[in-house]
Amino acid sequence: MMQPQGRPRPKIDDVAREAGVSRGTVSRVLNGGHWVSPPALAAVNAAIKKTGYRVNPHARNLATNKANSVAFLLTETHDRLFADPNFAVLMRGAADALAEHDIPLVLIMAGTDDEQRRATDFLTAGHVDGVLLVSSHGSRKGVIADIIAAGVPAIACGVPLGFEKKMGYVAADDYQGALELLEFLDNGGRKRIATITGPQDTSGGIRRLEAYRAHQGEAFDEALVAPGDYSRESGARAMRELLARVPDVDAVFAANDLMALGALEVLHDAGRRVPEDVAVAGFDDISAASAATPALTTVRQPFDRISEEMVRLLLDVIAGKNHAAITIPTELVVRESA
Amino acid sequence: MMQPQGRPRPKIDDVAREAGVSRGTVSRVLNGGHWVSPPALAAVNAAIKKTGYRVNPHARNLATNKANSVAFLLTETHDRLFADPNFAVLMRGAADALAEHDIPLVLIMAGTDDEQRRATDFLTAGHVDGVLLVSSHGSRKGVIADIIAAGVPAIACGVPLGFEKKMGYVAADDYQGALELLEFLDNGGRKRIATITGPQDTSGGIRRLEAYRAHQGEAFDEALVAPGDYSRESGARAMRELLARVPDVDAVFAANDLMALGALEVLHDAGRRVPEDVAVAGFDDISAASAATPALTTVRQPFDRISEEMVRLLLDVIAGKNHAAITIPTELVVRESA
Repeated sequence: MMQPQGRPRPKIDDVAREAGVSRGTVSRVLNGGHWVSPPALAAVNAAIKKTGYRVNPHARNLATNKANSVAFLLTETHDRLFADPNFAVLMRGAADALAEHDIPLVLIMAGTDDEQRRATDFLTAGHVDGVLLVSSHGSRKGVIADIIAAGVPAIACGVPLGFEKKMGYVAADDYQGALELLEFLDNGGRKRIATITGPQDTSGGIRRLEAYRAHQGEAFDEALVAPGDYSRESGARAMRELLARVPDVDAVFAANDLMALGALEVLHDAGRRVPEDVAVAGFDDISAASAATPALTTVRQPFDRISEEMVRLLLDVIAGKNHAAITIPTELVVRESA
Repeated sequence: MMQPQGRPRPKIDDVAREAGVSRGTVSRVLNGGHWVSPPALAAVNAAIKKTGYRVNPHARNLATNKANSVAFLLTETHDRLFADPNFAVLMRGAADALAEHDIPLVLIMAGTDDEQRRATDFLTAGHVDGVLLVSSHGSRKGVIADIIAAGVPAIACGVPLGFEKKMGYVAADDYQGALELLEFLDNGGRKRIATITGPQDTSGGIRRLEAYRAHQGEAFDEALVAPGDYSRESGARAMRELLARVPDVDAVFAANDLMALGALEVLHDAGRRVPEDVAVAGFDDISAASAATPALTTVRQPFDRISEEMVRLLLDVIAGKNHAAITIPTELVVRESA
């Protein structure tokens, strides 16, 4: 740390003298302000400012072993962070929930192997007290294993596949939410319901497809299943595949809204009316869903509650409690597209 | 840190024994691997893995005083991070440039007073070696002052107004870029050139308006100047003002592309043809500029070079060199809107 030239670095004693309090009072202020009267707290803070006193941060961390920060670890590329609005909503919600505890959120990305290694080094080096792990990919298992091995408190968004017993998580009820939507399509008289799947290395992608299989039962037909990766482009590609393969398709359940929006475009270009000829439904309820033409029928993920509960569980784990798993119900949102 | 139950925490000596090297060799590996032969390095890394050895991170930071990370500090709200594509481009460029030095980037937001206080606490607590400061607002001067006072190496994007002598920065040549664009509008025969300004507490906003004033000279008319805040909505609002006030306006220079896109919409709704009736030009060259109808004439900010140079300067300051200021030329991009 740079010091003003020619002046000795101020010490705790200097702060105590300036504030007119004991050294112990200053120390208690520096360690969180417990057992300090409001006037003394104000006096010490003013004295810290006036003297320019600064704790040696590493010495302080060594003593308290607390970083007073939490990481939002996104195992995605930078492009995906800005392309998929769910991440922004989750990050915002987590930052807001942490703000109530006066804890800052730092975002770190691990979309590539190198980023993953650097992120793990940073996260296990004591710079954060815990990790909110957000990913739409199971391919980054290494980072989960490393975080668990290092004993860093962490809570995942969605089920951390393969680590369900070792890491707490908060997930939407993907299965029930998808099933409810499929039953709604059924009740609307749709006979040939196709699905555009999410990545099959994520719990959301897997569970939403499981619901589709369960709903189709005996009628299950591979031709009605087209793979996507949650991007809008993959939804468009999958819709073109479905139209070519199953020309009489009359409903499409996309595993997220971005893919449903891609499907809408392709149907429009192909001259199919939505919902008259083909019903289209998504999952998430991003803001673009209600703005789409026609407005998208979808399953609302309770992102506010998910981020809130993630923060609550994480603070519990940091405080020494056992981790837990929470599943939160979704909500069917019926608009015009189905 | 959690330890496997019933096993003592492995020590440097355990690693040295396992690797068949001296304690000093292990120590050199832990401190960056200088003066260690490749075979010894491999043996030590394997031994670290096998023994499960972990450095006490705070003790290590205390010894080396290095966090091995850099912060991207954005003094904006979460909404702006996702609404203004420039931030994504800058963040991506900074992450890429740092990746070449194997340094992770962590993002921290300071869009409110509370966020600013928490960010400052985090940044001055030794969790990062330096700060890339990105803002489109001068209202967050406190954070700049705190970072300078704490002696944390930092480089700003754009001129850090009021701190030009104390903090290095990288800026596009806003004045020259704007002037070149205005001369282009002039040469196209435009007689009533209006401007939608950026925030007047930022160097970019100020310099682009200065160029407009200089270009108008004697002809300068307050009625042709409408304020914006870089958001698309503010551009639309300003354009409505200008149309009401100066019905014969035949050109608009918006201080960024988002505002120019807002202006395009309003002109379209008002039945004015672009560029036939009114020429519209922006600043930045975001990807939406070339995708607009008509495609937007603009001034390209060299964001790749800006982030690259910011990282280079910051690493220099971290290494103990003096800071520096760099101005990078912009490029006029002529498309259809002007």
